[in-house]
Amino acid sequence: MAATTLHVQGMSCGHCKSSVEGALDKLDGVSAVDVHLETGKVDVTYDETKVNLKAMQEAVEDQGYDVEA
Amino acid sequence: MAATTLHVQGMSCGHCKSSVEGALDKLDGVSAVDVHLETGKVDVTYDETKVNLKAMQEAVEDQGYDVEA
Repeated sequence: MAATTLHVQGMSCGHCKSSVEGALDKLDGVSAVDVHLETGKVDVTYDETKVNLKAMQEAVEDQGYDVEA
Repeated sequence: MAATTLHVQGMSCGHCKSSVEGALDKLDGVSAVDVHLETGKVDVTYDETKVNLKAMQEAVEDQGYDVEA
């Protein structure tokens, strides 16, 4: 297992939080997601043999949010 | 047909807009809803023999937003 923190811009409310959490949770290999709305930080625990940062970033961007590199 | 403008607080993003529009659209007698996210104003066209302001206000509040009287 690995852990990372994504920095996501544009999340403004509980709906945003849900859509980002849902998109990451759906990825095979992601085991835990914790969205901090106030800071834009998203903590993700994942299996690095199954999913990588690029896939996570794309999943969040597909929901309409920007992810800082 | 009648028209009114609700003043809704707390809508912050497109998801908020969708949930308020959806809740009002579902009411029998509501024929058009236009949410202005920037101002919090929600224009509603409705049949006053079928639905009243109180029902609209409750529908919006049920989604977690405050409606100014």
